[in-house]
Amino acid sequence: MAKPLAGLVVLDLTHVLAGPFCSTQLVDLGARVIKIERPGLGDDTRAFPPFLDGESAYFAALNHGKSSIALNLKAADDREIFERLLQRADVVLENYRPGVMERLGYGWDDLHARLPRLIYGAVSGFGHTGPEAGKPAYDMVVQARGGVMSITGETGGPPVRVGASIGDVVAGMYLTQGILAALIARGQSGLGQKVDISMLDAQLAIQEHAIAITGATGVPPGPTGARHPTITPFATYRARDGFVVIAAGNDAIFARLCAALGLDHLPDDPDYATNTARCQRPDLLKRLIETITLTRDVDHWIAVLEHAGVPTGRVQNMAQVLRDPQILSRNMVVTLQTDGDRPAFVAAGNPIKMSDLPDGTTRPPAPRLDQDRQQILDWLDTDATGR
Amino acid sequence: MAKPLAGLVVLDLTHVLAGPFCSTQLVDLGARVIKIERPGLGDDTRAFPPFLDGESAYFAALNHGKSSIALNLKAADDREIFERLLQRADVVLENYRPGVMERLGYGWDDLHARLPRLIYGAVSGFGHTGPEAGKPAYDMVVQARGGVMSITGETGGPPVRVGASIGDVVAGMYLTQGILAALIARGQSGLGQKVDISMLDAQLAIQEHAIAITGATGVPPGPTGARHPTITPFATYRARDGFVVIAAGNDAIFARLCAALGLDHLPDDPDYATNTARCQRPDLLKRLIETITLTRDVDHWIAVLEHAGVPTGRVQNMAQVLRDPQILSRNMVVTLQTDGDRPAFVAAGNPIKMSDLPDGTTRPPAPRLDQDRQQILDWLDTDATGR
Repeated sequence: MAKPLAGLVVLDLTHVLAGPFCSTQLVDLGARVIKIERPGLGDDTRAFPPFLDGESAYFAALNHGKSSIALNLKAADDREIFERLLQRADVVLENYRPGVMERLGYGWDDLHARLPRLIYGAVSGFGHTGPEAGKPAYDMVVQARGGVMSITGETGGPPVRVGASIGDVVAGMYLTQGILAALIARGQSGLGQKVDISMLDAQLAIQEHAIAITGATGVPPGPTGARHPTITPFATYRARDGFVVIAAGNDAIFARLCAALGLDHLPDDPDYATNTARCQRPDLLKRLIETITLTRDVDHWIAVLEHAGVPTGRVQNMAQVLRDPQILSRNMVVTLQTDGDRPAFVAAGNPIKMSDLPDGTTRPPAPRLDQDRQQILDWLDTDATGR
Repeated sequence: MAKPLAGLVVLDLTHVLAGPFCSTQLVDLGARVIKIERPGLGDDTRAFPPFLDGESAYFAALNHGKSSIALNLKAADDREIFERLLQRADVVLENYRPGVMERLGYGWDDLHARLPRLIYGAVSGFGHTGPEAGKPAYDMVVQARGGVMSITGETGGPPVRVGASIGDVVAGMYLTQGILAALIARGQSGLGQKVDISMLDAQLAIQEHAIAITGATGVPPGPTGARHPTITPFATYRARDGFVVIAAGNDAIFARLCAALGLDHLPDDPDYATNTARCQRPDLLKRLIETITLTRDVDHWIAVLEHAGVPTGRVQNMAQVLRDPQILSRNMVVTLQTDGDRPAFVAAGNPIKMSDLPDGTTRPPAPRLDQDRQQILDWLDTDATGR
């Protein structure tokens, strides 16, 4: 069966992270993504370390399966090629600052008037509307301003950035959703739409808990380290060789936890018998638990707690994650094809498992800058009938 | 113009967070979502604090715009209603542990054989395949095991949980993408698909940077607090009344930063002249910068740095976020309609801004348990022709 986006053509003018993250998802769903890069340097991330054989691992992880053509959209010859590409395109993606596409003559209003079926997706720091529409932003700026840093970190400590670039990545995911929704709408109306994603908006959208608490009480929550704010014990605890997650979501689990650790008296102690009581003294309880857990390794405690029916897990670094049998069994670590002489980069697999979507452990490589120019020009010369 | 998912019927058997997060997105895109809850208690989150007039703010933020019917899928009468709902449904969503739907007689294979157009979306801790398919998981378990906690927190400090529940939320977002992709595929093939999302897979998918580094070097990255791992200065710095982000992405910006702070000698000092040199001594540079920034308030430094062309921003808590003019101008804070006598909860707006998708600042309320039973039964009695 054909992939969901088979036959769709995406012109991808985006660079760095949020936009390319979206267009990689569209590749995984079957779209043909043509990456349009500036001549000479291409996407900034081609210069991001680390490198293997002179190629950026970061660029590779974010751009596999796309084709590349270098175009200067201010030069007449290249603009002519871009015009011909537009005639074949279903979707255009860009992450310039608002106004740049308009100055090039390719703003949404112009394009929509000429190509009413074309879908236009934009992702920017603050969106295309509002008092700060024109400003640039970085991942950390929207993580800070959007509130997630205020709830991440140790209690009483300084704000901490989320280690993953969720300022960019979540925005890229919303762009993907918007493009898919616009494709569905076009199926009914025949008309394309503009999708306008703001990285700052996207940060707000993922914080349902903090919004609900602040909206109802007026008091914004703060950071709580690795501890659940309202359930105890529900945190990471030190074992001899690392950390183990213990998630005792109710009193019955807590009783099983205490039996497994040899803390049999605790469930009868009024200071620890209920979650409300335990939430009064999480640090004391942590010390009681770690007095036991520090005596043995993580593997030991995972086995003991799983046997006792206590939700648990390891805190893994990325090297451990990339060897995790469950993750590997789901094809979530993929290798880029080496194309003869190129390095075998790894990337995340497609987390969208669909019964009719092939899901292997290899992917085509990321393109070298402008490598598909001739093939794209040849394709433009072919008959477009049937599309 | 009609919303993208207008006319689509979603039967939502999910509870707590990942599944309801997805179905709220489908509501925002125009779908009719019927929330099917267990009789008596309903969704667990109806009991999550804080409450206004006895209703959970958390439940409200995640379930606005849905209708509710309480069904016991083990009771014959209620199963008959569910069967009739299935005849009208485009999508079924569930987040039970793998196997539960099969034991109820509503597993994917059974449903697909009887209702080939039906799309089936599942989200679970570890997915429906692999050695640990049956195990439950919590947000913190997949944040820990999936690696994001290993790159979040202070350098050398204990692992820190991301304050937002990205273990659930990102999985819910991928479920949304899978459902939208399956709808597009159905438009071609006429057939529904199963979408199987694992919370653990989803964690891997958002860490392109850590995966690229680890895959290319074998060395997993660790946490770096609020500091960018490879650009300096690019972090939060203390001002008199809070923290300010300073993001000096290149030497020209660094020179402007130094001029603005009165540290004019630094760009000529070989210890600080290049990013490579600065990355050798981020703590010393932080002390030099904070000696200046601690003397004035955040507002002062935002104004000074913006004027100097240095990317900057505040670290806002959620109370500040909910008052932020740019966020408000984008309709990202919405109020739930009070329906006469109900509390006016707030929730995040829809971050997917589309040119033909209405985007207001109010939403219908979340349903009371089973409140729409009679209306749903009446609708089932109407003629289904035309769908």
